[in-house]
Amino acid sequence: MDVEQFRKAGYAAIDRICDYYTTLQSQPVSSSVQPGYLAPLLPTQPPTQGEDFSIIAADYDKYIMPGLTHWQHPSFFAYFPTAASFEGILGDLYATAAPHPGFNWSCSPASTELEAIVMDWAAKLLGLAPAFHNACGTGGGALQTTASDSALVAAVAARERFVSTHSESDAQTPLNSLVIYVTTQTHSLGLKAARVLGLQVRALEVTTEDRYALRGETLRAALEEDLAVGRKPFILMATVGTTSSGAVDNLPEIQAVLADYPEIWLHIDAAWAGIALCCPETRDELYLDAINAAADSFCTNFHKWGLVNFDASTLWVRDRLTLTRALDITPPFLRTAHGDSGAVIDYRNWHLALGRRFRSLKLWFVLRGFGVQGFQAHVRAGIKLNNTFNALLANSEVLQLITPPSLALTVFRAAPKSTPNGRAGAEAEIEKEKDGNELTHLNALNASFFARLARRPDLAITQTVLNGVFCVRFAIGAARTTEAHVRAAFEVIEEEARAVVKEDLEARETATAAVVHV
Amino acid sequence: MDVEQFRKAGYAAIDRICDYYTTLQSQPVSSSVQPGYLAPLLPTQPPTQGEDFSIIAADYDKYIMPGLTHWQHPSFFAYFPTAASFEGILGDLYATAAPHPGFNWSCSPASTELEAIVMDWAAKLLGLAPAFHNACGTGGGALQTTASDSALVAAVAARERFVSTHSESDAQTPLNSLVIYVTTQTHSLGLKAARVLGLQVRALEVTTEDRYALRGETLRAALEEDLAVGRKPFILMATVGTTSSGAVDNLPEIQAVLADYPEIWLHIDAAWAGIALCCPETRDELYLDAINAAADSFCTNFHKWGLVNFDASTLWVRDRLTLTRALDITPPFLRTAHGDSGAVIDYRNWHLALGRRFRSLKLWFVLRGFGVQGFQAHVRAGIKLNNTFNALLANSEVLQLITPPSLALTVFRAAPKSTPNGRAGAEAEIEKEKDGNELTHLNALNASFFARLARRPDLAITQTVLNGVFCVRFAIGAARTTEAHVRAAFEVIEEEARAVVKEDLEARETATAAVVHV
Repeated sequence: MDVEQFRKAGYAAIDRICDYYTTLQSQPVSSSVQPGYLAPLLPTQPPTQGEDFSIIAADYDKYIMPGLTHWQHPSFFAYFPTAASFEGILGDLYATAAPHPGFNWSCSPASTELEAIVMDWAAKLLGLAPAFHNACGTGGGALQTTASDSALVAAVAARERFVSTHSESDAQTPLNSLVIYVTTQTHSLGLKAARVLGLQVRALEVTTEDRYALRGETLRAALEEDLAVGRKPFILMATVGTTSSGAVDNLPEIQAVLADYPEIWLHIDAAWAGIALCCPETRDELYLDAINAAADSFCTNFHKWGLVNFDASTLWVRDRLTLTRALDITPPFLRTAHGDSGAVIDYRNWHLALGRRFRSLKLWFVLRGFGVQGFQAHVRAGIKLNNTFNALLANSEVLQLITPPSLALTVFRAAPKSTPNGRAGAEAEIEKEKDGNELTHLNALNASFFARLARRPDLAITQTVLNGVFCVRFAIGAARTTEAHVRAAFEVIEEEARAVVKEDLEARETATAAVVHV
Repeated sequence: MDVEQFRKAGYAAIDRICDYYTTLQSQPVSSSVQPGYLAPLLPTQPPTQGEDFSIIAADYDKYIMPGLTHWQHPSFFAYFPTAASFEGILGDLYATAAPHPGFNWSCSPASTELEAIVMDWAAKLLGLAPAFHNACGTGGGALQTTASDSALVAAVAARERFVSTHSESDAQTPLNSLVIYVTTQTHSLGLKAARVLGLQVRALEVTTEDRYALRGETLRAALEEDLAVGRKPFILMATVGTTSSGAVDNLPEIQAVLADYPEIWLHIDAAWAGIALCCPETRDELYLDAINAAADSFCTNFHKWGLVNFDASTLWVRDRLTLTRALDITPPFLRTAHGDSGAVIDYRNWHLALGRRFRSLKLWFVLRGFGVQGFQAHVRAGIKLNNTFNALLANSEVLQLITPPSLALTVFRAAPKSTPNGRAGAEAEIEKEKDGNELTHLNALNASFFARLARRPDLAITQTVLNGVFCVRFAIGAARTTEAHVRAAFEVIEEEARAVVKEDLEARETATAAVVHV
């Protein structure tokens, strides 16, 4: 392909993107293809001779588009938002046009320097303390691919600090004794880090009563128990905004406990909710003060609620030297005071791989394109839409809130009016269900409810299980979602809930009638 | 930014890319900015209000472009090629326009299914055996970000297999006893994997005489030594085409030794050279038969010599279940026969993170755009250009080949005609230098030679040290490099070599004269 052919194909690609976003809301949200749909449609080997791009582009429309789930669809309420913005697309396009592996300063200075600067911009947007800014020279931030990678990087730094601190008294800390702490509500990133590192993991219990947030006393009890038998917890992965329900671990209590265990690294995963910190009114409920005072590392994903196209996970650490010591494979004689002091950052020592893409460019484009007020407006719009959804839910005869809404996330279930626990959604009431068969019954009803929702082409939504309670999650945050989409989604949800509740009542009546007749 | 503003900015971005590649060769290859150049030019925080994209794009030109090193420049001969193609740019653009995190089949079926198909296309392009194809159901391949990530993934799978095999007799294999084997010439990915996993690493010696390739006897001796003292080697990371000199470890010998140690995982890193396997005439020297017979995993980077924009590292494994068992965090009750049999691949269990970009799209675009013949032509052109470079070098009075050229890579140094070892570049001669001061002297001369080359704006080139010998590397493979660029580069190189050799001779004469006069 020569330059003029590329110009033509490039313009066409831009037009295609414009068409995509213009027509997106009239498309089904999810793909309806079946497993294995693609292999029969494509050759089993690459062509011998190169093909014209017009053929390739036509095949994309024919074979790939039908297999895409549209995460940018305004009626996508599943998982978490993976917001795309035009500024983000342009940032990726600029970066991919002149690719380089960015592993150290000299292999492309702009790449390293822009990352250091925009990570500070992002830190300021979220209210992170100067200790986490690159400009301070002791802490700093770097882009990672995902929150899983960020958590793994944090765990490696934590293990290094723990092992090196303890090696004075104990020549070799047995790796088999190390334990990663998460909670039962922590994202799979905790288990994955443990799998990758081959270490033990302990999931601390959280309760319905505490709204699935980790409490200080649970942490202290676990620490005392583990330390007494020689297990060595070295990192706690706490969450600000869990995947299932948006729970926020009680960071002030955790901070107080960890003050007695300074060797334990506190990593905060705020993959989704962290972006909300751009709005000062959220900072108390998300415990920003405790994050700033006590976190060793903090991660949020701009590729979730943060308008930057996947992938753009931001990780900050309080002590960059601990991180770079853990990941640096530069022999000692090549280390420089320059590098250690941060005059020149070599980002290869801040992540798992060697090479890295020029992702700071899209973050820069998006931060500039939206500005602080644009970010705030985006987050506030999501929260407001969720309030609308919750107002509708409060009046429903067949839907029940499971735990108070968290920012732009709501967790609920279908429940008939006759259910003893009523509409309040009080956690204590739900706990009571567990004593009898009622919970089992309602879980089955909700599995059926969710199966109906999953078949709907006009919205996407996900399920979860909260301490044994089968629930449905409604996550707002796609860039193009409006009140009309939320209201339309609610109607679909309520319609399906009515259907399962009606079926359920009829089945119960039939069963009762059968008993009477026998 | 609305759709029409995006269309305008998108067209402009495409035009900018066309201009970039049209004018690239008239630009300096490397950036001349100084560390810290960017911070004074940009604000210290994001703007309060969003900015128009025309301002952002203008700032990109003003502040970012001067800080880029142009890896796509036809006179870029440093590190390894990071080839970009227009098809690759389009693939990234299509993918970034509809971003989704691709962690399992259902979150975007096309993403998973295309990856499985094009990984098989790529395997066939390179001549990998059916055992590595996804279609076979037992082995298969997945895209990773980099060769470092691929090596880390392989090490995790290897550790899992080793530990689970040995846990029957030994309830807990002490992780502290595990050892990763690399050679002194293995890319830093080996050390990095060991750092991340917190495990020991042993770098086996290779000799100048063996052209820096690992021999079977060295491996066997190390294994016997380690096993005798309770250390547990569990993976060997062998290389096909080392970074420094393109050395190819002696895989047939390694295969023979490892036949006696079946618990040891053989990972082949062919990050750069692996792409050359698309040309059947390279397959003997790159030991394809041994790879197909004995490798547990094999990695090459299509983002190096393979025309796909960074990042696109391809990793294949012989036993997918070992890999997914090692990385799977799905609870047992959620595992399905479907998933295990490969009817549905969940790629989240094939890499470190959870989410992943839709990178198979650009690999598909590039494989189709070039075809098998296009790939072969690209690789052969690089090898031919390197032969041209070597023919020029053979006639030089001031340049000396250090080891026979490897594909499109040449390692050489400046050496005056009077140097006793002559022009032949015989490894034995270089070994002799080590007995006296000659090597120290020549190393200093070459450090000065390289410093001169590094200051040149008209080419980029990198240094290395091969068993104590300071060398310069010349790596061909950028998509737009022609014979004229190689000849021009040779002239620059020879000119600088003449200058340092002349200075050196004058200094020696002055010293001799001083001795005579004293």
